[in-house]
Amino acid sequence: MFDVIRVNMTDGSIEREPLPKTYEGLGGRGLTSAFLLNEVEPTCSPIGPLNKLIFAPGLLGGTNCANSGRISVGGKSPLTGTIKEANSGGQAGSYLARLGIAAIVVEGQPQEGKLFRLHVAKDRCELLPADELKGLGNYATVEKLKDTYGDRVGYVSIGQAGEWKLGAASVAFTDREGRPTRHAGRGGLGAVMGSKGLKAIVIDPAGGEAAPLADKDAFREASKRFLNALQTHPVTSQGLTNFGTDILINIINEAGGLPTRNFSSGRFEGADKVGGETLNRVTTARKGDCSHGCMAGCVIRCSGVYLDAKGNYVSKWPEYETVWAWGPNCGIDDLDAIARMDRGCDDIGLDTIETGNAVAVAMEAGLKAFGDTAGAEELLAEIGKGSPLGRILGSGAGAVGKVFGVRRVAVVKNQALPAYDPRAVKGVGVTYATSPMGADHTAGYAVATNIMKVGGDVDPLSVAGQVDLSRGLQIATAAIDTAGLCLFVAFPVMDIPDAMVAVADMISAKYGIRMSVDDFNALGGRVLKMEREFNARAGFTAADDRLPEFFKLEKLAPHNHVFDVPDSELDRVFNF
Amino acid sequence: MFDVIRVNMTDGSIEREPLPKTYEGLGGRGLTSAFLLNEVEPTCSPIGPLNKLIFAPGLLGGTNCANSGRISVGGKSPLTGTIKEANSGGQAGSYLARLGIAAIVVEGQPQEGKLFRLHVAKDRCELLPADELKGLGNYATVEKLKDTYGDRVGYVSIGQAGEWKLGAASVAFTDREGRPTRHAGRGGLGAVMGSKGLKAIVIDPAGGEAAPLADKDAFREASKRFLNALQTHPVTSQGLTNFGTDILINIINEAGGLPTRNFSSGRFEGADKVGGETLNRVTTARKGDCSHGCMAGCVIRCSGVYLDAKGNYVSKWPEYETVWAWGPNCGIDDLDAIARMDRGCDDIGLDTIETGNAVAVAMEAGLKAFGDTAGAEELLAEIGKGSPLGRILGSGAGAVGKVFGVRRVAVVKNQALPAYDPRAVKGVGVTYATSPMGADHTAGYAVATNIMKVGGDVDPLSVAGQVDLSRGLQIATAAIDTAGLCLFVAFPVMDIPDAMVAVADMISAKYGIRMSVDDFNALGGRVLKMEREFNARAGFTAADDRLPEFFKLEKLAPHNHVFDVPDSELDRVFNF
Repeated sequence: MFDVIRVNMTDGSIEREPLPKTYEGLGGRGLTSAFLLNEVEPTCSPIGPLNKLIFAPGLLGGTNCANSGRISVGGKSPLTGTIKEANSGGQAGSYLARLGIAAIVVEGQPQEGKLFRLHVAKDRCELLPADELKGLGNYATVEKLKDTYGDRVGYVSIGQAGEWKLGAASVAFTDREGRPTRHAGRGGLGAVMGSKGLKAIVIDPAGGEAAPLADKDAFREASKRFLNALQTHPVTSQGLTNFGTDILINIINEAGGLPTRNFSSGRFEGADKVGGETLNRVTTARKGDCSHGCMAGCVIRCSGVYLDAKGNYVSKWPEYETVWAWGPNCGIDDLDAIARMDRGCDDIGLDTIETGNAVAVAMEAGLKAFGDTAGAEELLAEIGKGSPLGRILGSGAGAVGKVFGVRRVAVVKNQALPAYDPRAVKGVGVTYATSPMGADHTAGYAVATNIMKVGGDVDPLSVAGQVDLSRGLQIATAAIDTAGLCLFVAFPVMDIPDAMVAVADMISAKYGIRMSVDDFNALGGRVLKMEREFNARAGFTAADDRLPEFFKLEKLAPHNHVFDVPDSELDRVFNF
Repeated sequence: MFDVIRVNMTDGSIEREPLPKTYEGLGGRGLTSAFLLNEVEPTCSPIGPLNKLIFAPGLLGGTNCANSGRISVGGKSPLTGTIKEANSGGQAGSYLARLGIAAIVVEGQPQEGKLFRLHVAKDRCELLPADELKGLGNYATVEKLKDTYGDRVGYVSIGQAGEWKLGAASVAFTDREGRPTRHAGRGGLGAVMGSKGLKAIVIDPAGGEAAPLADKDAFREASKRFLNALQTHPVTSQGLTNFGTDILINIINEAGGLPTRNFSSGRFEGADKVGGETLNRVTTARKGDCSHGCMAGCVIRCSGVYLDAKGNYVSKWPEYETVWAWGPNCGIDDLDAIARMDRGCDDIGLDTIETGNAVAVAMEAGLKAFGDTAGAEELLAEIGKGSPLGRILGSGAGAVGKVFGVRRVAVVKNQALPAYDPRAVKGVGVTYATSPMGADHTAGYAVATNIMKVGGDVDPLSVAGQVDLSRGLQIATAAIDTAGLCLFVAFPVMDIPDAMVAVADMISAKYGIRMSVDDFNALGGRVLKMEREFNARAGFTAADDRLPEFFKLEKLAPHNHVFDVPDSELDRVFNF
C-alpha cells in the first residue's frame, strides 16, 4: 500500500519495495529523518555517494484533509553539515501519496557530469538521460519537460545552482499552474540533488487514487472540524489569505524586530513600501491574484500571483522572508525589484533567505551599497552566470562572510537567519540557536506567541519563558511536518484546542490506530531526537547551538537589547 | 625577567607586566595555547574582538642553544575554528627573548579599516598608525619600514591576505637578511592579525642580552652535547644542509606517497625535475646559496637562496611542502615557476600548503588544467588582486571545494593536507586526522619512522603501530615547539637518546629546575591536552578527527591502498 522507491544513481537501478516495518507510522519529515539516521553515515560528504536524498509526502498526504499536501525533502545538508529537512507546497506531495509512494530514496552517484531525469508513474519508474536540460533554470527546465510530459504532472527540479552544488541551492516544485514557484529552500538540498546528477523528477498522478482510509466516516468528521478551525482563525482565514505572509513586514517592523541592513537595526524606514498591504494594493491594481493556493486542497491561499506594471506574470507573491531578505535586509524598498529577484531565485534554484542574506553580507563587505537595488539584481545575475563571485554568493551568507572577511554574519550552523531579529524576538532566537536544522524560523515559530500573541503571550524582549516556548513549538512543528500539513495550520492549532485533536483523529482514522494529541506530540519529540542523534554523530555539540557572537555584543535599535538568553538556558531546550 | 606585553587594539593601550605565575614553565606553543585556553572564549569569532593573537619565543629562546630561535604564533584559527599554533624561524623569536619578553598578547579590535604597527624595543613599546602600509605585500612593507627602522631589527608583518582576513593568510618574519621569507603559515593567523588592524611589528633587539642562565656551566655542557647530535645525524648534517627539505621529493615519490594532481595518484612523473637534487644543481650553477640558515644559531641551514636564470634573487629555497603543493599536486614540474610562486605567497602573505592545495582543487573543478603552469601563476595573481576568485582561493582548499562543488578536497578540520598521502604514509594520516591543529605534518611527523626509518621502523602501509607512533610524536612535538626548537632537531632526537636528555638538561640549567626527559614529554602531553580542551569547548568531537571520506573510498596508486586505520584506533590517540 505504501512503497519506497529506491533509485541508485551509481548503476541506474530502481527498486520498489513496501515501506519497511521500522518506518511505519512515519511520513514527511519523520520519514526523511529516520531514513537518514538509519542509512546515512553522519560524517559523510554531503555531495558524495554516501549521502541520500529522500522525498516523502506526509502522514496525511493523499487525503482530502485541508493543507495536507506538503512534501518533505531530506538529506545531509551541504550548507550546515547537519541532518536536513526542507518541505514545500506544490503538487508533488499529494501526487506521490496518491500513487501509493511513501518515499523516493535517491542513492549513490553517477559519473561526474552525467544528468538524469526520473519519471514516476503508476506502474512505472524509470531513469532517463537529461543532457538536454543541462544548465537550464527551473522555468526553462519545466517548459522543456512539458513538451514530453504535458501539463497534468508534477515537476521537481533543480536550476543551475543545484547542478553547481551550491550551498543555497533549492529543490523546486511546480504549483497548480505548473510553475516552479514552490521550493524546499533551506540547507542546499538542491546541491545534493545536483551531486546525484538528478536534474528533475516527473510525477504523473494518472491512475492514482485517494489514500485508503481505515475509517472513512471518522476521517470525514475530523477533517471537517479541522477545516472549520482553519476557516475560523483570523490568521488563516483573513490575514494570510488577503495579504500573504508579507503581512508580517509592518508587524515585525513595528515590533522592532525587522533586521535591516544586515542585522544592524530592527526597523526599516521603507517597510510599508514592501509590506503585505502594499502587495495587495499593487496586485489588485494590476489585476493579479491576491488569494492563490500553492497546492490543491489549500484553504489558506496565501501565495498570490505578482504581475509587473504591464500586467505580465513575474512570480508568485514573494513570501515575507523573501521580501525581507532582498528588501529591508539589503536596504531595498522596491517591491517590483524584489518580485523579480524572487523569480530569479526560483529560476536559478536558490533559497531566497540564504541568498538575500549573502547579498546583504556582500553589501557589508562593500561590494555594493545598501539600498543599491540595481546592484542587488546584478549580484543575483552573477549567481546565474556561475562567475566566481556568483559561486561565492550562491554558497550562502557564511561563505560570503568567510571569503570577504566580514564579522557580522547572521548564521547558525552556517545557515542564514530568517527575517526576525533574535534580539527583539528572543523566542525565535532560541529556535535559531538550537534547532537541529540550523537557523530556521519554521522549526519553532515563537514569533507567533512573542509578537502575534497566538497560543499565549510571552514578552519578546524577556528571557523568561522563551526556552519552554521554543521547545514546545519545535516538538509540535516536527509532528506537523511529519503529518505533511502546511505549517500555517499551527495558528489555529495553537489557539483552538480541537484543531490539534482533529489532526490526531484524522491520522487515527486513516491508519486505523488510536492517536491522542499527546501521542502526536510524542511523535514530534521522537523525530527531533532522531535528528539530534544524527547531528551528534556528525560531531555537533552544544557549542553549535549558539547565535553568532555579535548578537550578544551589539545592541539592536530601537529596543537596544542584545540576545541575552544564557547558554545554560539554550542547553535546556532538548531536556525532554 | 620575563614579561608579557599586552596590546589592546580597541583603545590602543599597552601594558607590560611580569609573566603570571600560572604560565611559568611554559614558552612557545605551550604558552600561546595556555593563554588561549585561559583567556579566549572558544566559540568566539576568530576575526572578532574576543580572539587574541599571541607571539611567544620558546623556553630556550635567547640562549646560544643551536636552532632554538623559533617563535610561536597562537590564536583561534579562522581556517579551522580550533586552537592554533604556527611557528616560524627568522629573527623575531630570539630578539623577543633577548628583550626579556615571554609573550606579546594582542587583544581587542580597532575601528574597521584602521591599520597600526607595533614598535617593540628595550624600554619602549608603542602603537603607531600604519596607513601608509595599507595594501602592501610583505616585501614592500618591510622595505618601507626599513626607511624608518633600518636593517638591525626584526620585522613581523602581514601582506594583503592578512589585511583581507583570508583563511590562508600567514604571518611573515624576516630572516637574517631582513627578507620576509619565514612564515607562521598554517591556519590563517595572518587573518587574525589583520582583524586586529595590526600590519606589522618591529622588534629592535638593541640593548637586549642573552637570556640569563641559572647554571651556565651545565647549560654550556648540555648545549654542546645537543650541538654534537645535530652535527652527527646524517639528516641534519648532510641531507637538509645540502638539498633543503626538498630532498624529500624523490624519497616520497619513490615511496608512492607524493600526492599528485589533487591526491589522485601517489607518484608524479616529473618529480625529479623539482626535487632537492635538482634544486641543489640549479642553485649551484646559478651561484645561489645551497646552505643557508633561516635564523641565527641554526646549524642545519636548510633554507637556501633561489636565484633565477639571470642570477637575480627570487626567494628562499622553497620548502618541500611548497614545491609539492605548487608542483606535483598541481601537475607542475617547473622549478623556476614554483620558486616564483613561493615568492608570491611570501609577498601576499599566504600559507603555501593551503594555497597550493586551493589551486589544485580549482584545477579539479576545471578552472585550469592540471599542469598549466601559467594558469597556476595567474590564479596566484588573482589572490594578490583580491578579485572574487582570488578571495576564494585565498580562503583555502576547503572554501574552493565548497564554492565550486568539488568532492575530493583533502582537508581535516578545514585545513589542507600537506605533502604526504595518508594512504601511503598511514602514520602521518593518523596525525592529520587527530592533531588539534587540523591536518599538519609537523604536529607528529610519522613520515620519519614510516619512510626514513628514523626512530624505528613502522611499515607505512600497515595499520599496526601507527596510532602509537603518532601519539608519541605529537607529544614530543608539542614539547619541542614549547622549547622553541626547530622541529628538525627531532631527527637526531629520535635516533640519538642523549640528544633529548641534552634538551631537558638545557631547560633545567636555564631555569634552575630539574627536568628529566619524562618531564619534558609530560610537558608536551600537557600542552596537547590544553589544546584538546580548547577544541572540545569550541565544539570539536571525535567526528572531526577523521580524514575526508575519499581517502577511505578511493585507492591510491601505486600501492592501491585506502586509508584504513579504523575510527576506533584514531580515537585511541589521546588516551594518555
